[in-house]
This record gives sequence, structure tokens and C-alpha cells, in this order.
Amino acid sequence: MAGSVTARLAELGLELPPAHPPVATYVGWAITGRQIWVSGQGPVWGQEIRHAGTVGAELDLEQGRAAARLTALNLLAQASEALAGDLDRISRCVKVFGLVNAAPGFLDAHRVIDGASDLIVDVLGPAGRHARAAVTASALPMGIAVELDAVFDFT
Amino acid sequence: MAGSVTARLAELGLELPPAHPPVATYVGWAITGRQIWVSGQGPVWGQEIRHAGTVGAELDLEQGRAAARLTALNLLAQASEALAGDLDRISRCVKVFGLVNAAPGFLDAHRVIDGASDLIVDVLGPAGRHARAAVTASALPMGIAVELDAVFDFT
Amino acid sequence: MAGSVTARLAELGLELPPAHPPVATYVGWAITGRQIWVSGQGPVWGQEIRHAGTVGAELDLEQGRAAARLTALNLLAQASEALAGDLDRISRCVKVFGLVNAAPGFLDAHRVIDGASDLIVDVLGPAGRHARAAVTASALPMGIAVELDAVFDFT
Repeated sequence: MAGSVTARLAELGLELPPAHPPVATYVGWAITGRQIWVSGQGPVWGQEIRHAGTVGAELDLEQGRAAARLTALNLLAQASEALAGDLDRISRCVKVFGLVNAAPGFLDAHRVIDGASDLIVDVLGPAGRHARAAVTASALPMGIAVELDAVFDFT
Repeated sequence: MAGSVTARLAELGLELPPAHPPVATYVGWAITGRQIWVSGQGPVWGQEIRHAGTVGAELDLEQGRAAARLTALNLLAQASEALAGDLDRISRCVKVFGLVNAAPGFLDAHRVIDGASDLIVDVLGPAGRHARAAVTASALPMGIAVELDAVFDFT
Repeated sequence: MAGSVTARLAELGLELPPAHPPVATYVGWAITGRQIWVSGQGPVWGQEIRHAGTVGAELDLEQGRAAARLTALNLLAQASEALAGDLDRISRCVKVFGLVNAAPGFLDAHRVIDGASDLIVDVLGPAGRHARAAVTASALPMGIAVELDAVFDFT
């Protein structure tokens, strides 16, 4: 039976991408106590990178926000895998750390990462309201436009 | 009645800035268990950015350290809000992550972030001694010179 | 009596560097609950920086991976100090955050940080499988090629 978060995803017309398997010896998520620590995710759908390039140059702000939004869906996909599909067990999104692939002097990392914050709150409701840091990276793995990691509490 | 941390702030001639409200759907801090996770803060006083620019170019090391110091006060302001003003409940500053807005090749991120570490220890005493990482970012939101996030234990 | 992690280090022909004392008011590690939060480490042996420079320019990928490997040994050295030398008490490496000193446009941060992930899993076994984020920094303190911080669970 679909839970309320799954129902909310459907209502928003959103689908979770497949949880991207790590490409090395690390793992997509680690559980410690009642927390899930999710590895850095990118704007991918399975193996396909959907948003590559630097925001403010190759990509505009709206494209950056779309990248952040898809990356946030990948965070949720990892959390879902950690909870055997039951996203209703998430009691809180504690923290999101967001990096935007952008040129020196880029001033809008926070506005890009808002795309992720908005999505997480849209999907999880009040439990989605998280502490956050948003910064610029001079480069990201494989040229992805955004990278996010996160910590979730669960019950 | 003022607690001992508040007294120590006064003794140092320091005042906490107002806890800066997040400008988007995220929050200034999140509590998980007995920890406060504080969102990325900048060298602001309320809505006013006091230190913008790249350290090592527009700003020198001392200005960078002043930025780090004010940013650390903003971390404490958020923690204070989380604890309804009672900073004496902080039992430990666990971690500070510090980013310095600087040009490629900048070697002194750690010396800039020392401004924050020193302030936290000055204010909190031994409970202020934290794990830390200090790095350079090629850009930060709105051009702020320093961004810090932190995790505090409380009782 | 040497524990199994110590034996594994010897088997791999590895030696832990001395836990590098922080150069400022912060500390090399902080314990919160049953976690050790380790401060940002670099590719050093005691006071000596072994790998400085930008990966993809002064250093090639293999040199970057060697830097990541040594930095991971420094993470373990700090954890060892936190546990009075008993690395067998580590029940999990929860998270590694990895920064590679590299030029804009560098695409292989994840491949550099694999050097650290592989080492941690080699030494700790399944308990070493961690969540991870790998990104590029436009500069790191003192020009170090890699910086890593980490969180470990212990019993």
C-alpha cells in the first residue's frame, strides 16, 4: 500500500529515479542510530547525467534549479532504498549540503539550491524543513551541475 | 537572569546579531536528538552583509578573520534561538565547517577560519573546542567572504 | 595486544602517521554520543606535507589517489587517538567528505577520493563502507592536494 509520501509524490507528478549505485567502494547511504546519511548525489536518472555544466555559464539559473530538483529526488531515492521503500518513516530532513558547479564570482548558489529545498518540503511537508548550506564548487564529478548530500531522521 | 555564556559575551564586549531568518524554505537550524544543526551562516548583521568579497584579493587576512568572527556570532545566534536564548545548555560545539571565498591558489583558509574557532572557544570555553574543516570556495552566496555551518550538542 | 584492525594494517604494509595536532584552537576530533567527528585532514606525515598542488595540473590522477590514501590514514590516526589506540572499537565509518584541490573543469574528484574509500574499506572491512561526497575545491589550506573529514561510529 502506498504511503502518504508516495501519494504526495504522485500528486506532484513526480517519480523517484532508481537509487544510483555507487561506482566505487563507498555506499549510497549509511544508517547510524536513527539517521540515514546519504552520499553525494547528482542530477542523474540512473546512469544518465541529465544536467552537466557550470551554472551561470552553460546553464542558467532555472536550469540550475531543475538540476537541484532532480538531485533532491535522488536523495529521496537513496533514503527510500535505505527504508525499504517506506518514505513515511522519515521523521525529519535534518540537513542538506548543496554544491553548485559555477564559475568564480557566482552569487546565486542559494537560489539554485532552493530548487532542492522546495522539492523536499513539497514532498515531505513540515518534516522536510531542513538546515542547509549552499556553496559553489569550481568543479564537480563528471561535470554534474549540482551535488547534494543529506541527513534524514527516521522512526 | 543572564547565564554564564551571556555573561562571557558581555565580558568580551560581544553582542549576538539577530538570528538571520532563512530566505527560502529551509530553516536556520534543525534539532535532532540532543544536537542542533545550524544552517550555513554568513558575516551579516540582520539583513546587512558586513563582509563581502574574496579573501586574498579584495579583503586581506585580517578582514577575512573578522568575517569569520562575525559569522561565528551568527552560528551562536542561531543556536541561541534554538535553545530559547539559553546558550548555557550547549554542552559542546562538535563541528564547524568553514568556507572561505577566495581565489584559486589561496593557502590560508585555515588561518581565516581560526577567527571563528577562537571566538567560539572564547565564548563557550572548553565546550567550544570543536572538530573543524576549513576550505576555499570559488564563490559564496551573495558574495559573502565566509560561510560556516556547525553542529552543537546540548543538554 | 594488537587488535584485528592493527593486524590488518600490518598485513597491508601500512603504518598510521602520528595524529597531527591541530594548529589552532580547534581539536583533531570530537566525540558526541557514540560518534567520533574527525577534523579535516591532509596528506601529511606529522608536520610534513607529502602531497601539495592541484590535481590535474601539478599532480596526476595517481598522485591524487596517493594523497587521498595518506589523508585517509590520517583520519584513522585521529580516530585511533580518540579511542586510545583501539581501532577495533570502530563499528562503522559513517561518512567521508572529500575535497580535491583541482582546477575548474576537473571531472574526476570521485576517482581521486576513491583512493581514500578503498583504503578505509581495506583496513576496516565491511565496517568501512561509508556514505561519501567528493567535490573539488579551488584551493586548500597550505596547498594540500586533498582534504578529508569523517564521522565514525564506535562501541
